Amino acid sequence: MMVVVSYDVATSSLGGARRLRKVAKQCVNYGQRVQNSVFECVVDPKQFEQLKHSLLSIVDLEKDSIRFYFLGSSWKNRVEHHGIKQIVDVENPIIL
Amino acid sequence: MMVVVSYDVATSSLGGARRLRKVAKQCVNYGQRVQNSVFECVVDPKQFEQLKHSLLSIVDLEKDSIRFYFLGSSWKNRVEHHGIKQIVDVENPIIL
Repeated sequence: MMVVVSYDVATSSLGGARRLRKVAKQCVNYGQRVQNSVFECVVDPKQFEQLKHSLLSIVDLEKDSIRFYFLGSSWKNRVEHHGIKQIVDVENPIIL
Repeated sequence: MMVVVSYDVATSSLGGARRLRKVAKQCVNYGQRVQNSVFECVVDPKQFEQLKHSLLSIVDLEKDSIRFYFLGSSWKNRVEHHGIKQIVDVENPIIL
């Protein structure tokens, strides 16, 4: 199944930039970065639970936001893209 | 139907900050901001075409990126959120 992971990490808060890098590093293990803070991950339910568990252990739920969008298995017709394709080095994500 | 709109606008490029504000202002006419660059819009096909047309007339497709995710009508079980709810003043969006 395809799960879209989008997140806002409060980089202005203490440890925010580090949390941002760690979130991206986790996501890259499960899928592809399509925008600065959006990953598309093709995972099975068990992998999703692992990804979710690792992300929720990184973020600060008082300051950050994570959304999961479940597109199912026939996800290709649920996604439309316009513009540049993000090629971002997850090692040094752009901290906007 | 629910359409998730996520976007990356190159604010470092000429006119980028202005494009970012205009994209957000358009999206707010059709839905709710859930993260800095993510809106959830409940629209019919005609409204979606209007939204898409207006967004594509604002962004620079050489520099910016827009993704539409179609969650359909039974979208509530396709979305999971953790963390803070973004309450962002779309008039003065945070330019990260």
